[in-house]
Amino acid sequence: MALVVQKYGGTSVGTIERIHLVADRVAHTQQEGNQVVVVLSAMSGETDRLIKLAHEVTTVPDERELDMLLSTGERITIALLSMELRGRGVNARSFTGRQVGIITDSAHTKARIARVTADRIKEALKQGVLPVVAGFQGINEQSDVTTLGRGGSDLSAVALAAALKADRCIIFTDVDGVYTADPNIVPAARRIDKIAYEEMLEMASLGAKVLQTRSVEFAAKFNVPVEVNSSFKAGRGTLVTKEDADMESAAISGVTGDRNQAKITVVGVPDKPGIAARIFGPVAQAHINVDMIIQNMSQAALTDLSFTVPRADLKKAVPIIQSVANDIEAESVSVTEAIAKVSLIGVGMRSHSGVAAKMFEVLSREGINIMMISTSEIKISCVIDEKYLELAMRSLHSAFDLDQTRS
Amino acid sequence: MALVVQKYGGTSVGTIERIHLVADRVAHTQQEGNQVVVVLSAMSGETDRLIKLAHEVTTVPDERELDMLLSTGERITIALLSMELRGRGVNARSFTGRQVGIITDSAHTKARIARVTADRIKEALKQGVLPVVAGFQGINEQSDVTTLGRGGSDLSAVALAAALKADRCIIFTDVDGVYTADPNIVPAARRIDKIAYEEMLEMASLGAKVLQTRSVEFAAKFNVPVEVNSSFKAGRGTLVTKEDADMESAAISGVTGDRNQAKITVVGVPDKPGIAARIFGPVAQAHINVDMIIQNMSQAALTDLSFTVPRADLKKAVPIIQSVANDIEAESVSVTEAIAKVSLIGVGMRSHSGVAAKMFEVLSREGINIMMISTSEIKISCVIDEKYLELAMRSLHSAFDLDQTRS
Repeated sequence: MALVVQKYGGTSVGTIERIHLVADRVAHTQQEGNQVVVVLSAMSGETDRLIKLAHEVTTVPDERELDMLLSTGERITIALLSMELRGRGVNARSFTGRQVGIITDSAHTKARIARVTADRIKEALKQGVLPVVAGFQGINEQSDVTTLGRGGSDLSAVALAAALKADRCIIFTDVDGVYTADPNIVPAARRIDKIAYEEMLEMASLGAKVLQTRSVEFAAKFNVPVEVNSSFKAGRGTLVTKEDADMESAAISGVTGDRNQAKITVVGVPDKPGIAARIFGPVAQAHINVDMIIQNMSQAALTDLSFTVPRADLKKAVPIIQSVANDIEAESVSVTEAIAKVSLIGVGMRSHSGVAAKMFEVLSREGINIMMISTSEIKISCVIDEKYLELAMRSLHSAFDLDQTRS
Repeated sequence: MALVVQKYGGTSVGTIERIHLVADRVAHTQQEGNQVVVVLSAMSGETDRLIKLAHEVTTVPDERELDMLLSTGERITIALLSMELRGRGVNARSFTGRQVGIITDSAHTKARIARVTADRIKEALKQGVLPVVAGFQGINEQSDVTTLGRGGSDLSAVALAAALKADRCIIFTDVDGVYTADPNIVPAARRIDKIAYEEMLEMASLGAKVLQTRSVEFAAKFNVPVEVNSSFKAGRGTLVTKEDADMESAAISGVTGDRNQAKITVVGVPDKPGIAARIFGPVAQAHINVDMIIQNMSQAALTDLSFTVPRADLKKAVPIIQSVANDIEAESVSVTEAIAKVSLIGVGMRSHSGVAAKMFEVLSREGINIMMISTSEIKISCVIDEKYLELAMRSLHSAFDLDQTRS
């Protein structure tokens, strides 16, 4: 008998009809002889409705109170699904984050899970009860309600699966898995059957929106096999798991594109020791993440220093850099928003040589200039002109044999 | 410095604008130098919306799950009011029924309060925090969410006031107090300044809808002064408190009318010992409350036995009585729905003689036939033809000097 944690997102429980479908699937999984634990999000739209109410009340809602407010959304769906299942004779019971012992720190609206006891779930399972758990929420040591931030329900599911040593955690969502590239950009993209935690982490942080980074980190840390699957159609999804020999057979697992970047160049920087620290110190203090950095010697004793920041932070970053540039007597500061980052990801890179060279060659063949490069053990990223992003992704996807074979 | 518990009902927090008004009053009460604890209901309409959702999911929703669902309504209002107050610089904090230690039995949807710890409220008050508490809800010994049934938020407020030994518990509602009679029926009715717990209990159970019986019982048991007041207009309300000399100066405090009754008569019952038990045993077993009973000797060795039951239970009661009547060889069973009960209530009855005689005389003068009579120490009730109810109430109200003096 396998123990399976199933998580359903907001669109999967967005209407009464869809809650019926979720009940069908849950009941079916149990009938197949599995123990099932269900984790739910709020009905899609409910969280937005509550946030809107809060902002009608006051311009900057207190975050502890916001958590008290937002945590109601999941309580509604777990109660409704439990009723529905009980109406069919399934011995389901709803539990809040508190009741299943999801203990977090006190960073309201973006709390981090400190530990998960899961005592009541274990007890319930022993008694043949099917637990239906509110995702996205926990309590802190003072017993105040906290929420886990974006993607929090996925994290709840993975954390419970870890605490229960579940055989599998299935994230039901509106896509049927993780793709080799965004199918909206690369029509030939195909669903990946199996992907390593590390690859999934890189893909998540590089723009793939299927799973949040934190959930993948948690799954990797506790070795929880996570399956991403569609709640609307039957079929296989993508299994996120430990790296194995299969995965290494291909050099590349996926291609990602990220437009959420902007480039800042400080031109004509006097080449003295300590200059980099003087530039990046104030940027870090303003909590702006710098991603890539390159330095070009342009003239004798003067260098150009370019780096990328999240596009959303550009407004905050520019005056800081401008002020530093004046202090260090640099010539000027230039900003380019129209850039994008295209990346290749794959644990196979470790054993396949020549991936970088091939990537540069493919881009060059398409006439795409590479502005910046950064690499890690399982990833290569190039910053290019934004207008070439789709072309770059499609060319790389095809060149690295990721295109699906039409049958 | 007085400690005041203020409870606001669903219409008082039904819109964002009204939540602003509640915040005004709460902040004002605190500025006057009081310690304030606020208890809230759900926004009016919210509970109905949730119940409707539950019934769309399944025909008979499980009661534990219904409580999980319904308890969200109050969490929304306490979070919103706390945000609003904090936005104004008032150090408010929301607390759920669980967090303030409202411990109940496990009778989901109509749980009874077992005890109230109020530890977190006491701690909060010590730290200068203004607690905003979710009414209507508690937890049972298994830490499952329960709700307290109709009028449950009033009960939460009274129970917290008792646990905190508050100086006063103010129930803000859509009427400005308890009236000598329903003003819709008796236009000359006036607001009562002060009323004894016992009188309020009788009035609540006899049809006055301002406070639920259970809240008044609780207040009486723990001697909590309860004020009923309007959340929409300033001014004095009605204080429900211990009986005192003032209250006894008038014979009568109020007149109530109750249409929620029906009369059943078993005609021609052989007058033998044990007959009453044979009739009322099965009725009690069906959980039907019998209110008044009279027995008339009609012919030699045959009596007629009449009694009243709640009109809603009539359909359930009639076949039971019909079956018993056959068994005991009574002649027939007749049913009258068009009856009503008019009652006079007042602790002053204890010291004023002749109240009953005067009541009968007033009704007789108006040509109203009395079908049944029941009395207690502080109450006289007469069952009359329903069509005379308004007339009876107005005549009695006036005869016992309750009409307001126009100034």
